[in-house]
Amino acid sequence: MKEIEGGITAPLGFKSCGVHCGIKKNKLDLALIYSRFPSIAAGMFTTNKVKAAPVIVSQRKLRRGSIRAIVVNSGNANACTGKRGIDDANRMCEITAQELGITSEEVLVASTGIIGEYLPMNKIEEGIKLAAKSLSSTGSKMSAEAITTTDKLIKEIAVETDISGQGKKKVKIGGIAKGSGMIAPNLATMLCFITTDACITEDALKESLQKAVNFSFNQISVDGDMSTNDTVIIMANGEAGNKKIKTWRKKPTLRVKDENFEKFSEALCYICTYLAKMIVRDGEGATKMFEIKVEGAPFPKDARRIARAVATSNLVKTAIAGASPNWGRIMAAAGSAHSKLKPDRIELFVGDLLVVKNGQAVEGLSVSRLKEILAKDDIRIVIRLNQGNCMATFWGCDLTEKYVKINKRYI
Amino acid sequence: MKEIEGGITAPLGFKSCGVHCGIKKNKLDLALIYSRFPSIAAGMFTTNKVKAAPVIVSQRKLRRGSIRAIVVNSGNANACTGKRGIDDANRMCEITAQELGITSEEVLVASTGIIGEYLPMNKIEEGIKLAAKSLSSTGSKMSAEAITTTDKLIKEIAVETDISGQGKKKVKIGGIAKGSGMIAPNLATMLCFITTDACITEDALKESLQKAVNFSFNQISVDGDMSTNDTVIIMANGEAGNKKIKTWRKKPTLRVKDENFEKFSEALCYICTYLAKMIVRDGEGATKMFEIKVEGAPFPKDARRIARAVATSNLVKTAIAGASPNWGRIMAAAGSAHSKLKPDRIELFVGDLLVVKNGQAVEGLSVSRLKEILAKDDIRIVIRLNQGNCMATFWGCDLTEKYVKINKRYI
Repeated sequence: MKEIEGGITAPLGFKSCGVHCGIKKNKLDLALIYSRFPSIAAGMFTTNKVKAAPVIVSQRKLRRGSIRAIVVNSGNANACTGKRGIDDANRMCEITAQELGITSEEVLVASTGIIGEYLPMNKIEEGIKLAAKSLSSTGSKMSAEAITTTDKLIKEIAVETDISGQGKKKVKIGGIAKGSGMIAPNLATMLCFITTDACITEDALKESLQKAVNFSFNQISVDGDMSTNDTVIIMANGEAGNKKIKTWRKKPTLRVKDENFEKFSEALCYICTYLAKMIVRDGEGATKMFEIKVEGAPFPKDARRIARAVATSNLVKTAIAGASPNWGRIMAAAGSAHSKLKPDRIELFVGDLLVVKNGQAVEGLSVSRLKEILAKDDIRIVIRLNQGNCMATFWGCDLTEKYVKINKRYI
Repeated sequence: MKEIEGGITAPLGFKSCGVHCGIKKNKLDLALIYSRFPSIAAGMFTTNKVKAAPVIVSQRKLRRGSIRAIVVNSGNANACTGKRGIDDANRMCEITAQELGITSEEVLVASTGIIGEYLPMNKIEEGIKLAAKSLSSTGSKMSAEAITTTDKLIKEIAVETDISGQGKKKVKIGGIAKGSGMIAPNLATMLCFITTDACITEDALKESLQKAVNFSFNQISVDGDMSTNDTVIIMANGEAGNKKIKTWRKKPTLRVKDENFEKFSEALCYICTYLAKMIVRDGEGATKMFEIKVEGAPFPKDARRIARAVATSNLVKTAIAGASPNWGRIMAAAGSAHSKLKPDRIELFVGDLLVVKNGQAVEGLSVSRLKEILAKDDIRIVIRLNQGNCMATFWGCDLTEKYVKINKRYI
């Protein structure tokens, strides 16, 4: 597997673009992603009970057949907008289908931005018409820009991996994402769109997406707030011509995991982790990024709960912002997770420094060394539970005065 | 029921004091609470898996018989201190027992302060000796002061209520508390000690305490961080001479709730709610306090989860800090709770202003009026789910730059 240029237009048969339609001032605010060939798709969405209209509409469509396009607007979340919001989201799909000469059922939709306002449908209609004419096989970066709100970084990546069987074939996967917290006043959402030219079964696509999202987007936190619009969608059009990737292979006497599936999943996980970490790095007001790795847990869910509790603790996040050597906060946050934690067995590493052993500070702990490590921009914390073999990793960012300042404002 | 003076020394037969033993500079840092007569006790403790030594020791003792005294130090949490921490906590009880001429089994212990350091036992021993000589029937305020760390407010209250049966008797309950978040660098904990001269069964005392704590301390949040030392203890010595309060009365044909139990519970709930709200008002960096009331939930746990999710959301808390009319954040936070929420039925009131109906903004919503309400120091938010009859109330405070500043520092 290697990184390549081109983002979501790197895989064969995909075009995209970003245009300005007028929801936001002087900024790209509408993106279109299109596959020239029929493709299958899989998606994962916010588990928030207050779901935006486009989430409801796209979720429903994914249960049916082929998907050819995704239309996305930024600046308005189309959330808390009732029946009119649903109608507007459906209308976005219809206009897109009309312009591209496909059916409305083949179009998915996503939105991000202010909650509780209706979409300016006239502007959006014009925007979609313009976008349909602007589709380009080098349009990834512009579409990545068009889906952002207050992001400071454009989040884009692509990789290539060899899939074996009937001669090797190169398969490409590209992704774009947006998100930097539940972002500036009233703006919400994390969005991610992934394209691939892999030939793959629907089951395999779905399973590999779930795996990749669980190990990436589900393991990051900027402020612990869950959006109404979170959406991750992958489209696969099979243009690479590889031997079809399945979850399992039938061998004469038993079923074995398809090794191409493992390869594809690994590449997809790489894409998602890259984009997820970029979201954290771009967190509102953040000056530092940290990784919490919990090892030696009795069950995976214990590892995840503890990693999440530490990564989302305001006290841990402010301590990291101030390079304050308060390791007690990490211990307290770890203990607060509903888990089978045995405190006496905990080992805590900050960077390469062993801080806690058997649940107590190591003798002669160098506080100045600890401060030095915490003063860095990238901090790795390892919590060893010594209770089993399960582990989890979580990424977070520090909590600064700037986060508060950004989020106190109303646009 | 009426409020009276005297705090925890208002009930008959209780003495207390606060002294300086040298854990903190120039501040009271050791408190002693004592009942002249045998008393029963009930307690509730942190559910954090990383429990401080005094929590482990006191929890164990409560399962046994009579309790006569509580010894408390501030400035050092005696947490993450292993076997030596347990020995120190037990030693605190032994010294106290010796000085008061009671048994060590009759003494409970609590600590608050920095995590991961051993107690200075020499200083504490001297402090306990001094405290045993300083016990006073007007010592409540000094003991309330001695258990604080970075609190700005002294938290103390007492009430009197009539208990009927064999002529009315006045029963008194007094309480002191400390806490203002997981407080300044490395300092943790919420502590609360309650005394009463009521004559009451152990079961009734335990049940009324659980009820009161669930409706008060379990419904507040400053920063969502759970301490290693949280402790609430009530002692009842029966000196009021009232007819014994039980949970149930046997009537000729059926069991009915004892009305005196209801009265006592109501008074205890008043004490706990008063102290809990004071902790929120004293929250680190807080400039405002708010109340989140969730009504019309299908089950109590849904109401609680939603109220908690809204009250602990960093985005809601910063919006309130900035008087920003982002009602979408309240909706998103409510939806993020794992509950049976039906978004289309939600009504949202901020102060007396109806903001959301059927899950959407009301037509012609006055944003300037909304801003006006949010600019106040005390904000009431009501979320009506229209899905049932259950409700819950949660209290929180705003998240300000000052919170971040306080918690970035290391002492």
